[in-house]
Amino acid sequence: MIYDAIIIGRGPAGLSCAIYTTRGNLKTLVIGKADSMLFKADKIENYYGFEHPISGKELFEIGEKQALRLGAEIVEDEVVSIEKTDNFKVICVNGEYEAKTVLLSTGAPVVRAPVKKLDRFEGNGVSYCTTCDGFFYRNKKVGVLGYTDYAVHEAMELMAFTNDITLYTNGMTLNISEKLKDSVSKLKINDTKIKELDGQEKIEWIVFEDGSRDSVQGLFVAYGSASSNSFAMKMGIETEGKSIKVNDKMETNIPGLYAAGDCTGVFKQIAVAVGQGALASRQMIEWVRKKR
Amino acid sequence: MIYDAIIIGRGPAGLSCAIYTTRGNLKTLVIGKADSMLFKADKIENYYGFEHPISGKELFEIGEKQALRLGAEIVEDEVVSIEKTDNFKVICVNGEYEAKTVLLSTGAPVVRAPVKKLDRFEGNGVSYCTTCDGFFYRNKKVGVLGYTDYAVHEAMELMAFTNDITLYTNGMTLNISEKLKDSVSKLKINDTKIKELDGQEKIEWIVFEDGSRDSVQGLFVAYGSASSNSFAMKMGIETEGKSIKVNDKMETNIPGLYAAGDCTGVFKQIAVAVGQGALASRQMIEWVRKKR
Repeated sequence: MIYDAIIIGRGPAGLSCAIYTTRGNLKTLVIGKADSMLFKADKIENYYGFEHPISGKELFEIGEKQALRLGAEIVEDEVVSIEKTDNFKVICVNGEYEAKTVLLSTGAPVVRAPVKKLDRFEGNGVSYCTTCDGFFYRNKKVGVLGYTDYAVHEAMELMAFTNDITLYTNGMTLNISEKLKDSVSKLKINDTKIKELDGQEKIEWIVFEDGSRDSVQGLFVAYGSASSNSFAMKMGIETEGKSIKVNDKMETNIPGLYAAGDCTGVFKQIAVAVGQGALASRQMIEWVRKKR
Repeated sequence: MIYDAIIIGRGPAGLSCAIYTTRGNLKTLVIGKADSMLFKADKIENYYGFEHPISGKELFEIGEKQALRLGAEIVEDEVVSIEKTDNFKVICVNGEYEAKTVLLSTGAPVVRAPVKKLDRFEGNGVSYCTTCDGFFYRNKKVGVLGYTDYAVHEAMELMAFTNDITLYTNGMTLNISEKLKDSVSKLKINDTKIKELDGQEKIEWIVFEDGSRDSVQGLFVAYGSASSNSFAMKMGIETEGKSIKVNDKMETNIPGLYAAGDCTGVFKQIAVAVGQGALASRQMIEWVRKKR
């Protein structure tokens, strides 16, 4: 079954958009984990329409109930990749979905992995995109920096090029869904805390806090969840800094693909995200109407 | 006393902005009549954050309580003119106020006066701006089309140029505040319903439904409330069609003057208005900070 619209992200931008697309008669699926930045907001008092402060968690829950009531579907899953076919194929840890149009509303780019000298080797062995750079590491010894489903997904992509792959969790506990446990067994795992990266021009060593070191020829960063940025790199979406570049209609440079909310780098506020979600919906409804 | 920010309009765009400017420590005054388009919305279900539909009236009231609680002032008054001084002087029916920065959030341009052939004579004797065009009508016989305080205010401006002024209410009952009753007594009033305008190249006649006609050399339209459009014309604000032209920061072409909501002509939705209000606030706070 093909959805009309898939919305990636369950925060205010995504849900505002879903409310509109659903009312605009688009079969709409919202995909995301319940980990919106909203949850960090203990007290919101600057979003119009609430006499008294409301918690982020409360607003998150109300917004979902609102979208569900209007007919949107919401699934708890993690998107690891999006492919542009005739439509868009959205690949998650637990399933694949297809839609005519997609909104990226994945929130602010995830905080950079807390590893020293990571920046220094960016482009010199440190990569954020297996799809883009995996090919350069055929039969080489590579690492994936991460501890979640997203990291395992990236490691599996690298399997096409090399078998010598280590997952470096930087001291984090592996947090992998049942479905991917099998894949994990094909990887070496190193869960020591990293002190820093080292090398001459290119990355050569991962140095651990316990004094040990591992030699690597490449390190792919997939720390935490896949951010809009990772999708951008894989799909060739234009960015400005770490943000998705959109015009005033919330269009990215890829036809049919839109972005809204914190991932666009505009004033990071619920009010703005909600407005952008509504703006995007108008174009998405138009897009699907033309495709029908 | 000088306010930091004056916000003209009490709908979602204005109040969202006021919530931010107040929290941003700007002394903020909101001016407007309780006649937001919101009141026409019986049931709102597409604004994120409300599980069940809410009425426009309810949302209006909650939003005001929210802004008041945070420290904004709200006055019920009608703005008839804005003057650019060192700051901005906002002239209302019942008072004058001054501020360092102003937001126009007056809602959608008021519906065109329902008079036949009005467009045909625009620029040929029909004007929307006494400040711009009054001078051309020295000692001539002119009409003002309208029935509210705004129309009387416009007629008073024309008094500097001519004494032969008739207020044509087009069958509407005069709706004038006590304070302006004195001014009204200086005007001729014609409350017959208008059938159409007539003339060769320029307007020459107002033709009434009862068959009578009045000769005029100019007709100034001030029907209903002063819209953002009237301010635009008086102040030289750039427009696109009937909408105020803003950039992605909600700046107009006049430094310190911002616009948000339906008057900008963007997707006319509460969500969008609220987002624009927040965006404008950020610039206004910055503007005042620089002025201090």
